[in-house]
Amino acid sequence: MGSQKIGIVGLGVMGENLALNISHNGYSVAGFDLDGAKVESFAKRTAGTSAIAAHALPEFVRALATPRIILIMVPAGKPVDAVINDLTPHLQSGDLLIDGGNTYFADTERRIKALEGTGILYIGTGVSGGEEGALKGPAIMPGGNPAAWPVFKPIFQAISAKAEDGAPCCEWMGNGGAGHFVKMVHNGIEYGDMQIICEAYWLMERLLGMTPADMSRVFGEWKSGELSSYLIDITADILAKTDPETGKPMVDVILDTAEQKGTGKWTSQVAFDLGVPAQTIADAVFVRMLSALKKERVAASAVLSGPPVSFRGDRKVMLENIRKALMCSKICSYAQGFQLLKAGNEEYKWNLQFGTIASIWRAGCIIRAQFLGKIKSAYETNPVLLNLLLDPYFARVLDSYQAAWRVVVVAAVECGIPVPAFMSALSYFDSYRSANLPANLLQAQRDYFGAHTYHRVDKEGKFHTKWIDAL
Amino acid sequence: MGSQKIGIVGLGVMGENLALNISHNGYSVAGFDLDGAKVESFAKRTAGTSAIAAHALPEFVRALATPRIILIMVPAGKPVDAVINDLTPHLQSGDLLIDGGNTYFADTERRIKALEGTGILYIGTGVSGGEEGALKGPAIMPGGNPAAWPVFKPIFQAISAKAEDGAPCCEWMGNGGAGHFVKMVHNGIEYGDMQIICEAYWLMERLLGMTPADMSRVFGEWKSGELSSYLIDITADILAKTDPETGKPMVDVILDTAEQKGTGKWTSQVAFDLGVPAQTIADAVFVRMLSALKKERVAASAVLSGPPVSFRGDRKVMLENIRKALMCSKICSYAQGFQLLKAGNEEYKWNLQFGTIASIWRAGCIIRAQFLGKIKSAYETNPVLLNLLLDPYFARVLDSYQAAWRVVVVAAVECGIPVPAFMSALSYFDSYRSANLPANLLQAQRDYFGAHTYHRVDKEGKFHTKWIDAL
Repeated sequence: MGSQKIGIVGLGVMGENLALNISHNGYSVAGFDLDGAKVESFAKRTAGTSAIAAHALPEFVRALATPRIILIMVPAGKPVDAVINDLTPHLQSGDLLIDGGNTYFADTERRIKALEGTGILYIGTGVSGGEEGALKGPAIMPGGNPAAWPVFKPIFQAISAKAEDGAPCCEWMGNGGAGHFVKMVHNGIEYGDMQIICEAYWLMERLLGMTPADMSRVFGEWKSGELSSYLIDITADILAKTDPETGKPMVDVILDTAEQKGTGKWTSQVAFDLGVPAQTIADAVFVRMLSALKKERVAASAVLSGPPVSFRGDRKVMLENIRKALMCSKICSYAQGFQLLKAGNEEYKWNLQFGTIASIWRAGCIIRAQFLGKIKSAYETNPVLLNLLLDPYFARVLDSYQAAWRVVVVAAVECGIPVPAFMSALSYFDSYRSANLPANLLQAQRDYFGAHTYHRVDKEGKFHTKWIDAL
Repeated sequence: MGSQKIGIVGLGVMGENLALNISHNGYSVAGFDLDGAKVESFAKRTAGTSAIAAHALPEFVRALATPRIILIMVPAGKPVDAVINDLTPHLQSGDLLIDGGNTYFADTERRIKALEGTGILYIGTGVSGGEEGALKGPAIMPGGNPAAWPVFKPIFQAISAKAEDGAPCCEWMGNGGAGHFVKMVHNGIEYGDMQIICEAYWLMERLLGMTPADMSRVFGEWKSGELSSYLIDITADILAKTDPETGKPMVDVILDTAEQKGTGKWTSQVAFDLGVPAQTIADAVFVRMLSALKKERVAASAVLSGPPVSFRGDRKVMLENIRKALMCSKICSYAQGFQLLKAGNEEYKWNLQFGTIASIWRAGCIIRAQFLGKIKSAYETNPVLLNLLLDPYFARVLDSYQAAWRVVVVAAVECGIPVPAFMSALSYFDSYRSANLPANLLQAQRDYFGAHTYHRVDKEGKFHTKWIDAL
């Protein structure tokens, strides 16, 4: 190591922080950006190292020894295509191009195909952990041309986060768009996690009338238990924070209008394409859209009223019920995410290793949690596990926590407090464990009006009924 | 009329029935299909009329006077492109090509653009009502090149269903893909309606232990009330039907594995693209996917158990509660569908008339219902209505029925009976009428880990907090 120079195209915060991370790990770096100011900033932050800050592509490429390793950190979409087009004339067979953005996995598949004749080894990799993770060690999910993996493996494993057992949070995901697909599902799960935590917060606020400081203490307690995770951790921090301007709790001065970018939407849309029920993740995205309709909601609140909120009972017991509801909803949300990975794997023949995926999500990334160690074990014990809900550990948790979960949802429904993710996770659980669902009536309706035929419970084949004599 | 001959390409059941419908209305028809057997069948069914059954395209086109009116009734996708390619060399400027299949609206937009230079007037039209509707009068939703509308308007309005007030269920939707977009949303709403009815059925079956015959009587009563609709109607028929082979109720011999075709999936995916929360429709599609996992569910039912089902209380009261829950869920599902129409209209500048759309859905199509008259009135009274939930009639229903709705959802949750659409509609209602949602915490999380910034409740602008000193 050390002798090798890694090129980074795109010196935004993520690109610059990854470059610094690579540099801290003993590799030298060369950075390029179309924006000269970013190149200057990069030059300043890497001053005193062997780093090269390049203002032009030829200079940038010349700084790299072959096989060149170039990490592209520009916004997903057309900018990636532009960089590839600009770079390829300067590259040669065996060079590595690694897209580390939140690229739609099908775009990565397309780019790999387009570069097939050139000998350039193309990689699409998920990088999770935000700006801090990029600097200190993210979770990295590379996929694409497998010939590239041995070349960049030592570097990427060095800069990645390390799990508690020391394992690097960077492993090969699979061919084609596998890496970006896995990252997409990671982000979908992240949407679910964030929404589920928001619902727990909202019940503490609306149902129990707690102060942010009190809530912070509760999340602080949860941090050390089975919910131990980065998102619970930062929630405790956030709820403890005071706005210096007003002296109010920070959460009370922040507007409740969330934004949503591509990956949550893609995860939901791909779920429809692959036929995977992923309603909790999809609902987490829909809720963000509803949150964005602030003005409309304020207007609606004057027209549509709900039941009064009243809580009688033991607050400590209800808090423990909420914790259990959060845990159960989280299990269902992850189950949906992993079913999506499974369906993608079958569709695209990537040979994804679900235990490995859970393993590399244990540290560095936004959804990092103790919980992922349990998923890792579940898939290591049974690599062909039908659904996470059926793993003995998770099945036991669901079994012993579901009564509390139902108490929480009932309280929310009776008091008119929306808990869409808690609810859709519960209906996923209740549907999945139902040997029978009312789709028999639905099939009869379809056969009635469209002659779509149906299957029978007592014999094979397709059947059609002449439902009314007049037809 | 009478002198004009309409051409139909694609003589499956839908195409043939539409041809017969056109013929019964005094127009003559010419039919063509690549499948000679279908042409023969068409010839037999139109024997004794002026109809022409063509085995070759040139013969088919020659039978039509200019401007030719050709209705394409082939499966959506590549077959439509193939028909267009085969036909266009034989057509001339001013001829009409009308795609009556369940085509994705963006494909219609693309085809309109591709034909722009030819002078051929391209139309994409939704046709709803199943096979019976095609024969006896469907709801028809045409859009595309507006110069075509005066040419085919008399014919299509003649063959369409008529609402109670005599209005034809066929009106011009708008430019481009407007017709197919409206039909797509119609089908998404249909998914929601069917699922909501299934949940009412399932509560009667699981919670109340009713027989199909008893349920049929209940749906029979609902038929004459505010739920009066085709789908409630056929549900009453279906539940009364006995299997001649086993003597059991038909619903009890039909397997509970539903299928789902393109339109429900598209509606959900487009909701994500347009940023419209449409969770009840999306959940109805997800539930079909869950129903298809029959083997997995049967296996899961042996591992995961739920609470015992117990119902104490007045069955009549609960049935009325279920009826009210159905009504409320239906309102929310339609509200989502109409928000989707609104968003599509804004995105594509179609100038959709929401009252007109509700009007033409009042008869002929699968979702036909008294209810649609109320939606028609809502948009006629207030063409810029923000959301159906805010219309005085619907707001009043929700206000007076929501307590019953909550009782039903609580009973389902406590007994472990999945009612995903009832629940997601309720969380839509409770979210939409909430001036505040917990997305403030979510924005804080996003700002914490990704410096995504947030808005404040007390002043304009974007803000970022340094959440912890170490960062």
